[in-house]
Amino acid sequence: MIIAEIIAIGSELLLGGHADTNSVFLSRMLAEQGIAVRFKSVVGDNIDDVSQVLLNAARRAKVVIMTGGLGPTVDDITRDAVAKVLGRPLRRRSQAIQMLKTRFRHQGQTLASNQSRQAYLPIGSGLLWNSLGTAPGFSVKWKNCRIFCLPGVTREARQMFDDAVQPLLKKEGYVGPGIRTRTLHTFGLIEGVVDEKIANIVSPSSLVRVGLLAAPLGVTVSLTKTKVDCEDILNASMASANFDNTKVSLDVLIERISKRLGTYVYGYDDEQMEEVVGKKLLESGLTIALAESCTGGLIGHRLTQVSGSSAYLERGVICYSNSSKIDLLGVSRFLLRKYGAVSIPVARAMAEGIRSRSGAGLGLSVTGIAGPTGGTPEKPVGLVYVGLSTPEGVFTKEFRFHGNREMVKLRSSQGALDMVRRYLSDLPLLD
Amino acid sequence: MIIAEIIAIGSELLLGGHADTNSVFLSRMLAEQGIAVRFKSVVGDNIDDVSQVLLNAARRAKVVIMTGGLGPTVDDITRDAVAKVLGRPLRRRSQAIQMLKTRFRHQGQTLASNQSRQAYLPIGSGLLWNSLGTAPGFSVKWKNCRIFCLPGVTREARQMFDDAVQPLLKKEGYVGPGIRTRTLHTFGLIEGVVDEKIANIVSPSSLVRVGLLAAPLGVTVSLTKTKVDCEDILNASMASANFDNTKVSLDVLIERISKRLGTYVYGYDDEQMEEVVGKKLLESGLTIALAESCTGGLIGHRLTQVSGSSAYLERGVICYSNSSKIDLLGVSRFLLRKYGAVSIPVARAMAEGIRSRSGAGLGLSVTGIAGPTGGTPEKPVGLVYVGLSTPEGVFTKEFRFHGNREMVKLRSSQGALDMVRRYLSDLPLLD
Repeated sequence: MIIAEIIAIGSELLLGGHADTNSVFLSRMLAEQGIAVRFKSVVGDNIDDVSQVLLNAARRAKVVIMTGGLGPTVDDITRDAVAKVLGRPLRRRSQAIQMLKTRFRHQGQTLASNQSRQAYLPIGSGLLWNSLGTAPGFSVKWKNCRIFCLPGVTREARQMFDDAVQPLLKKEGYVGPGIRTRTLHTFGLIEGVVDEKIANIVSPSSLVRVGLLAAPLGVTVSLTKTKVDCEDILNASMASANFDNTKVSLDVLIERISKRLGTYVYGYDDEQMEEVVGKKLLESGLTIALAESCTGGLIGHRLTQVSGSSAYLERGVICYSNSSKIDLLGVSRFLLRKYGAVSIPVARAMAEGIRSRSGAGLGLSVTGIAGPTGGTPEKPVGLVYVGLSTPEGVFTKEFRFHGNREMVKLRSSQGALDMVRRYLSDLPLLD
Repeated sequence: MIIAEIIAIGSELLLGGHADTNSVFLSRMLAEQGIAVRFKSVVGDNIDDVSQVLLNAARRAKVVIMTGGLGPTVDDITRDAVAKVLGRPLRRRSQAIQMLKTRFRHQGQTLASNQSRQAYLPIGSGLLWNSLGTAPGFSVKWKNCRIFCLPGVTREARQMFDDAVQPLLKKEGYVGPGIRTRTLHTFGLIEGVVDEKIANIVSPSSLVRVGLLAAPLGVTVSLTKTKVDCEDILNASMASANFDNTKVSLDVLIERISKRLGTYVYGYDDEQMEEVVGKKLLESGLTIALAESCTGGLIGHRLTQVSGSSAYLERGVICYSNSSKIDLLGVSRFLLRKYGAVSIPVARAMAEGIRSRSGAGLGLSVTGIAGPTGGTPEKPVGLVYVGLSTPEGVFTKEFRFHGNREMVKLRSSQGALDMVRRYLSDLPLLD
């Protein structure tokens, strides 16, 4: 298996403002090509530091991908650091000048003098065309290592990976059978319970690695075949037969885990709750209307992240104030006074109100206390009621979430959408 | 200045599923203590790899902070890797057993046998109490380096930093004058224009570093004093006088930059558009009501991320369908037929409709084509109209955004909120 390292360059990445996110998509793309990332580093805009890290990496790995430091300013020192490691000077490259001129013409500007700094690349390196920005990338072979330098802007780096890095890796024989990962998403169980329920499904001696991640939207189980054994490599080089076997086994394992976790599983791999609910709404032919109090529009936002959601999202109302609950949903003043806005009767009336007024098939409501203020001993921060009005009647559910305002809103939106998923899948709505 | 390194441990961080986000808050917290992070590394759950990275780091830096790999499973190898570098064995620590028992009792569980693995720490190390989870942290001195091992769960690592790491760093004299960063946020200008406008404000020879970041919500300018000169250290150790000068100069620079960028500046440092708009609404005494089509609830979601927003957010409607625009806002069928839902007359009618029906001081509407489908040559994906109905009349604005569905939604919400900010600040609404 080919081993790679990723190096992100930029002092801003060391100061706590931003995470290094380029290495996340690069890791995934490399894994798909069967190339395993062994180390990642982040280093500032300093020639000595960058060359020190690059030297370490290029000695250990067969492929090194660097991002950032290719701009026109004096802080952009990736070109110089690579030249230092190679022991070769930079040279002005007419092809790179050409690229810069094309890009600037595209933006209706002419090439500024400082920009031409970007066209000086180490001798022996090949230009990597940047189709979305002005920073030319480059690639060079040093001893046993293939080094790629990509821009720091994610969009540009991603495009350059597809356009130039992946084809070169393939041409030079670095690409092997992909590292496969399958994931499964649950809502409503805590991590410890998921861990217990799926015990003994994957043997510790197998090549499959099990990972649990507890996130605001639920617990995710991931299975990864991290190491490829000899047989795999042998078979993969002859045909894709064994690779298919690998596929089947991960899929079988995911199926077994899914069976154990039952109705708490809402999706697989890249699937998000809003997509799952969207698909089920499309299948059912039902439309939905929303009455959001404490989620403040988040459920609508999530549903409309899915292209084509206009087919089933009829409308929504953000009813923060009591008067809006009365005007837009017909909730009675009596209920609000007697039980308070955060109560089962009000959640029920909100769901019924939005369904009947909109004419949608389903009415979904959320009312709760997102915090940090507004909680009382009887109704603490994190107390949330969801109502779901359906052709078969109205259902309500109480949740008690922990975390800050943002977390409570996220979890509330997930709890509400999960209730719709359960209803449309004929699953029990309550534990 | 004290130099630190951060090492994140976890094979899942190398596979492309997650970014290393712990190092972001650790960098910021260290910077506040005047400790500069020089390198960050990510490494998998492998004793040899972790000890190799730790050895490099502990030779170069005065402080090393590791996160992850402290759990009870065989994959959790941080304790062993540190012991290997120290050349000392692990020993069962009664204090750690005590901590584990306390934590498990707190969760209503008893200590499982595999959990006690977590109580074996390298000889000579001190326990770091985990007040939020079950993994004990520890700290140890090796040659000239202070090593800290924190859990991988962000919440726990953050609490342990506050409870134990920061006090120990202070006690042992690692803490110096903080590295200061100031940022300024703009909306409505492209990066190249911001760069041009602020040219020559900060001299390249100064200790202040200028960074530009083009994000979906606008261009951010950051100023950081990355290096501290001798005078700084000298003065800081005597009094805070010089440190105040540093503060003034960064603040003066930010003010000069702000003047050049004018009305496009919407906030400073951690301020977000929704907070800025919220504050201005509170000051003005005006309430707001929303009519969101293509943003689908995102503006409501953003405004309600701010605690106390119920004081000014009267209500919102998510009016995806034409019928909801007619029912909830009183938009006429004639306008919808003649101009289409994505048009200036409909944006205007939506803003007027939500304002008059809600009785709010301001009515804000958004209608546009978020994509990826639904675009035409006349009305392409990314075409968005914002309407703002005010006591002084209705204003509309056309935007043409690029990017995918998520980006168009984000930018639309920002453009709409920026229009409210401009109105409430008596700034021109149009370029």
